Amino acid sequence: MRVDIWSDISCPWCFIGKARFKTALAAFPHKGDVKVVHRSFELDPQLNDVRPTTGAAHARKYGLTPAQARAAEENLADIARREGLEYLVDFRDHGNTFDLHRLLHLAADHGLQDELLSLVYEGNFATERSVYDSDYQVELAVRAGLDEAEVRTVLADKQAYAHQVRQDEAEAARLGATGVPFFVIDGKFGVSGAQPAEVFSEALQRAWADREPTLTVLGGTSPAGCDVNGACDVQPV
Amino acid sequence: MRVDIWSDISCPWCFIGKARFKTALAAFPHKGDVKVVHRSFELDPQLNDVRPTTGAAHARKYGLTPAQARAAEENLADIARREGLEYLVDFRDHGNTFDLHRLLHLAADHGLQDELLSLVYEGNFATERSVYDSDYQVELAVRAGLDEAEVRTVLADKQAYAHQVRQDEAEAARLGATGVPFFVIDGKFGVSGAQPAEVFSEALQRAWADREPTLTVLGGTSPAGCDVNGACDVQPV
Repeated sequence: MRVDIWSDISCPWCFIGKARFKTALAAFPHKGDVKVVHRSFELDPQLNDVRPTTGAAHARKYGLTPAQARAAEENLADIARREGLEYLVDFRDHGNTFDLHRLLHLAADHGLQDELLSLVYEGNFATERSVYDSDYQVELAVRAGLDEAEVRTVLADKQAYAHQVRQDEAEAARLGATGVPFFVIDGKFGVSGAQPAEVFSEALQRAWADREPTLTVLGGTSPAGCDVNGACDVQPV
Repeated sequence: MRVDIWSDISCPWCFIGKARFKTALAAFPHKGDVKVVHRSFELDPQLNDVRPTTGAAHARKYGLTPAQARAAEENLADIARREGLEYLVDFRDHGNTFDLHRLLHLAADHGLQDELLSLVYEGNFATERSVYDSDYQVELAVRAGLDEAEVRTVLADKQAYAHQVRQDEAEAARLGATGVPFFVIDGKFGVSGAQPAEVFSEALQRAWADREPTLTVLGGTSPAGCDVNGACDVQPV
């Protein structure tokens, strides 16, 4: 089975949802048959500067008093901590996440996507360092196991993996995702938001029961192929 | 819908099958909703030198007389030409295709995979140039639209995209593919071999009828997400 998870770095619920899904997956009997793919979703693609978020700005954005904004953030932190995550509440930088998504695709190419995403989330929420700083991005990517020179090359070339980020976003739009986190199991079952682990467990079970046990082979066997022994069908006239 | 096509460069039926599938897809009413992904499959992964294939060697391999081998190849050429493909019959080099598969993954990252695969097949079958020559690989990749420096970097680093090639091969094994071309539609319907275009048409129609029209949403709406306006759910305590 395959689980696609659309998320954005700046989204606290994505950080929390990733942990909740992980809890569900860890308890899933067929977890060895589940492949998780992180997909790109930019909540604020037009943003072209990095903004330190203050409590006051946060309160204005949500129409809250500063005290309410602080309480809401403390509440989020409590929720995160219940999932075993560290979470600071002094408000973090907010910026464009396109480069981070490009790096996550690079990491996927090396089988290190989940590692890098975890480190980026931690950087953003558990330490509140600015994940929009390219040197810090390099540091995190190297810590995930990527090659520093390759990371710098990808960061310097804005076209690198841009196509994949756009493809992910187009697919999210096709699937009707208007927010993140957004989970899709085997292209059939969707879960929107950082739902409780039980919802993910149920979704995994439902998708497992519903999966195609084997391929339905159409067209029967063909005398027009090459096999794993390197032998191709020949049809002498 | 998504179609995964496993193939190898040295496989004439893969070249022919690609054209037959393309014919079916061109006539498919929902072709705009079909995404094609080429997947790696090495028919002869142990091969570590490049061998010019002679008619005599080809005949020996298949237990044919040289005349029969020639006739079989002429027959393949006829079949290829009926699909609008050029196909030479003087036997071509045979070599390890790992680097070509790595390049096809690079091309996929730039949305140029189908272009590159077509050019590599043409090089191998329509011109019988040695697609195992790295300068010619670079030439084809650049013709497909890739950046020369990036192509050379990937070719020089044997680890680049190696992970993806291995992943593709592992997935083919899981799906029970013992030869190529091997087509899988939406992970559910398999077509083995370069079947007639009608078989692919039928498979596309069947998969279309069987597709999930929309996601089944589990867990209902959630107050735990961030939306496309960049606003996250807050839960003031």
